[in-house]
Amino acid sequence: MTIKIFVTGGTFDKEYNEINGELFFKNTHLPELLALGRSSIEVDVTTLMMLDSLDMSKSDREIIARNCIKTNEKRILITHGTDTMVETARILAEKVKDKTIVLTGALIPYKFGSSDGLFNLGSALSFVQVLPTGVYIAMNGRHFSWDNCRKNTNTGKFEELDKQ
Amino acid sequence: MTIKIFVTGGTFDKEYNEINGELFFKNTHLPELLALGRSSIEVDVTTLMMLDSLDMSKSDREIIARNCIKTNEKRILITHGTDTMVETARILAEKVKDKTIVLTGALIPYKFGSSDGLFNLGSALSFVQVLPTGVYIAMNGRHFSWDNCRKNTNTGKFEELDKQ
Amino acid sequence: MTIKIFVTGGTFDKEYNEINGELFFKNTHLPELLALGRSSIEVDVTTLMMLDSLDMSKSDREIIARNCIKTNEKRILITHGTDTMVETARILAEKVKDKTIVLTGALIPYKFGSSDGLFNLGSALSFVQVLPTGVYIAMNGRHFSWDNCRKNTNTGKFEELDKQ
Amino acid sequence: MTIKIFVTGGTFDKEYNEINGELFFKNTHLPELLALGRSSIEVDVTTLMMLDSLDMSKSDREIIARNCIKTNEKRILITHGTDTMVETARILAEKVKDKTIVLTGALIPYKFGSSDGLFNLGSALSFVQVLPTGVYIAMNGRHFSWDNCRKNTNTGKFEELDKQ
Repeated sequence: MTIKIFVTGGTFDKEYNEINGELFFKNTHLPELLALGRSSIEVDVTTLMMLDSLDMSKSDREIIARNCIKTNEKRILITHGTDTMVETARILAEKVKDKTIVLTGALIPYKFGSSDGLFNLGSALSFVQVLPTGVYIAMNGRHFSWDNCRKNTNTGKFEELDKQ
Repeated sequence: MTIKIFVTGGTFDKEYNEINGELFFKNTHLPELLALGRSSIEVDVTTLMMLDSLDMSKSDREIIARNCIKTNEKRILITHGTDTMVETARILAEKVKDKTIVLTGALIPYKFGSSDGLFNLGSALSFVQVLPTGVYIAMNGRHFSWDNCRKNTNTGKFEELDKQ
Repeated sequence: MTIKIFVTGGTFDKEYNEINGELFFKNTHLPELLALGRSSIEVDVTTLMMLDSLDMSKSDREIIARNCIKTNEKRILITHGTDTMVETARILAEKVKDKTIVLTGALIPYKFGSSDGLFNLGSALSFVQVLPTGVYIAMNGRHFSWDNCRKNTNTGKFEELDKQ
Repeated sequence: MTIKIFVTGGTFDKEYNEINGELFFKNTHLPELLALGRSSIEVDVTTLMMLDSLDMSKSDREIIARNCIKTNEKRILITHGTDTMVETARILAEKVKDKTIVLTGALIPYKFGSSDGLFNLGSALSFVQVLPTGVYIAMNGRHFSWDNCRKNTNTGKFEELDKQ
């Protein structure tokens, strides 16, 4: 079983520009993270875009959906900014059928040394192997169905809608 | 759903003694790792022992089994040295029924900065939530049934027996 | 010999706010860095301000100068943002006589895991113990006299004026 | 001014073998550390040996001395295990005249994430630029003359002999 991984950017892959002190994107750190985790899962990584998810447009989400449909793999992991992760999940649930899709991200950039990204990647990669067909978000060690989930913007944590 | 976590030691929790240059155990870093991963899974952590798994005796494994039986939780995560993880899994499979037990560990101590432990913890915590009753090992991003798994001592990675 | 350390902010002490993705100041990490370096130098740390050096005003620099004059210690280390470090050094050279003052900073926040801050602190703390009376900048493993130094904004490195 | 750096091993450069759980030497991390510190000091690095300083023989120390004499540089930094650093310093003081030699090391391997090595390197590199001719040990943010220094084996810190 190969897991298809689509990289879309997000805090996960942000870096610190030491010349101007701003955060920016260069290349994805996914392969580095998988090596660090000594992962032996067969994966096929494609970078679709490198965006802060607040800058993601409708057409960006359609690109993601189209790629999910097009790939031969039945199990897909997407790294994504957390701010609009639920919005992308909703589009994917509408458009992509018969696949298991798990979106994950990070609150702290991987390059900042103490990131939640490695934990989330281990978690998302595990959920995507065993969950049935559907679109899910894997954050904070948990999995959420796309239609029962939101990011709590005060705590930064994901929670069920009906827990409110 | 609460996950019961039993800590038994292993490379996961080894530290470096800067006075004599040797590796040793102090306290578990599990809570620190869960905080780093921004985990919001309800867990109940108990340290049963702090052993290099090469030093684990038959009676140590019985203590682990007894605690798995005794706990009210149906889903149990065990941190364990990788060298005899399969041996403990076998004992647990014999003695503990009707529970989902996932053993995990690390090749690099968490305190050494670039550990696989955080990835493995995210992975094991995810598998233990969704796998059916049984005893499993979660390493390298994968899950293995206790009776179809071994550590490849050359690569440090876990693999199926029938892959040989 | 006690070294007086004045903290004024700078990249050194910036942290990442995982809720809004912005960089901000909380408390100084100086004591943490000194502990990490196993420093046994007697120091007395005072936080004067927590500013990005681009936001530092003339009156802020006067506060720093006044504190350098007021302290009993003859050897003073100042952590400071790199962008206007030379400007502050100039003010200090005008106002503070008969003391050895070394300014240092970092290009990467300490909290980001791979900072130059620990190296610079080790360097600045060493220079301040042995250099004669005067105002210096310690960056990139070197020391510069306040009046023969500037930050190269392309490379991020400090260099002599006459090297141009 | 070029600083000659001789690498001799020590905790500084120890790594963790994830297959057998033992500490070992591979290559020096000096260039990596200098890059991390954004050092712009001109250095010329030569690895003479990769030894735990407890395993260093009389002839090893003679090799170090010979190389210090032979090099054209007047300012020499030596990375060295802390346990017998003072012994090597004594030999160098006997044999090498008219040079500034600074020995430094680390209590925690650089690869372990929270090493004192980067701090010590920044410190030693600074002292070696400004101290007069002689043989010194730079540890814990301080410099010691070779003949007034020992490692306190209880605290791991270096101290003056006459402080006892």
